[in-house]
Amino acid sequence: MTPTITAFERSPDRGQGLARDMRVRWALEEVGQPYDVRFVSFRALKQAAHRARNPFGQIPTYEDGDLVLFESGAIVFHIAQQHAGLLPDDPESRLRALAWMFAATGTVDPPIMERSMVALFERDKPWFEERLRVVDERVRKRLDELSARLGDADWLDGGFSAADLLMVHVLLRLRSSGLLDAFPRVAAYVARGEARPAYQRAFAAQRAVFTAHAGG
Amino acid sequence: MTPTITAFERSPDRGQGLARDMRVRWALEEVGQPYDVRFVSFRALKQAAHRARNPFGQIPTYEDGDLVLFESGAIVFHIAQQHAGLLPDDPESRLRALAWMFAATGTVDPPIMERSMVALFERDKPWFEERLRVVDERVRKRLDELSARLGDADWLDGGFSAADLLMVHVLLRLRSSGLLDAFPRVAAYVARGEARPAYQRAFAAQRAVFTAHAGG
Repeated sequence: MTPTITAFERSPDRGQGLARDMRVRWALEEVGQPYDVRFVSFRALKQAAHRARNPFGQIPTYEDGDLVLFESGAIVFHIAQQHAGLLPDDPESRLRALAWMFAATGTVDPPIMERSMVALFERDKPWFEERLRVVDERVRKRLDELSARLGDADWLDGGFSAADLLMVHVLLRLRSSGLLDAFPRVAAYVARGEARPAYQRAFAAQRAVFTAHAGG
Repeated sequence: MTPTITAFERSPDRGQGLARDMRVRWALEEVGQPYDVRFVSFRALKQAAHRARNPFGQIPTYEDGDLVLFESGAIVFHIAQQHAGLLPDDPESRLRALAWMFAATGTVDPPIMERSMVALFERDKPWFEERLRVVDERVRKRLDELSARLGDADWLDGGFSAADLLMVHVLLRLRSSGLLDAFPRVAAYVARGEARPAYQRAFAAQRAVFTAHAGG
């Protein structure tokens, strides 16, 4: 059966690959699982049909037969459980990968998302510079900790896993900020993720959606 | 074997149960698993021994034999997999519970934590009221969505699960804000969680740590 995911009809990032359907597309590409995409307008995100799939009106969602899932972390974990290649085999390493998945979405992502919100919605406020300095400091703290843990390793914990997939995608949002420049190990880690053929295919697929709509 | 968790030597919430070791204590109490606690000072959080357990220098961590875990979401999931009572049996319901666990820690928690930070660190800033209004609006959006999904149900998806445990603990941080008052279904949901004997035992255990140190 071919699973169906949801994605923005028009992604607010204009095809830069920052919307969270990228995480699910990338995971599906890594394991070679074809998928369908249902595109959702901003209006439809708030409507009952989508809220039944995701109570918080977000993308992505994932449907496969009777299974309906939300939250990119849970969807990627499900894909990684179903197919080989995205999680280590032994149960303890698998649990550590899950811990990193929670760390990516709940510990590293929030200050990075907050920084995006400041840059987007507070640029004209008198406090913009001071606020940006504070959130940049919060982001740098996480990057510093991540860099220390990575050391000279290619990936977070052994081979590439679903945890790296989520973490790299979380970090990609910093690309335009310049903050990664001071953390060469983290920047190289992100570049390793982006260089994966499965990432490239997923990126091209979401990019094509933006390009197709760009004329309209 | 008795697992060991870490908790703050002196919790910044003064024993209100908001520190995240509560999530793990509560889960262990639900399943009847005794545990040891290693108390960590703020200085020790930054030191190599603790960073080896948690690269981001946070509590809680969980150690059981060779297994060392961080992130309360992953620790609670592990406890729920090991013992009956915190996750449904069928795989699809179990995945939905995991989705709600990611939603609690990655979608509902961030605006609530941000509100705490504003209240704590921006109270004296000229922009305090305007910022508080904005983050309150973000929190209310999530509460409204959660209330709509809960409807008249007692718990998020069938019986009480690890997802409810995390979600209730995330929401408890709002207790003093008054924001829950406008969402009686969510307030009742939180109260149901707090009323569980396992929650009460976990709360008393972390409270005793604060009381023991209060004289010092």
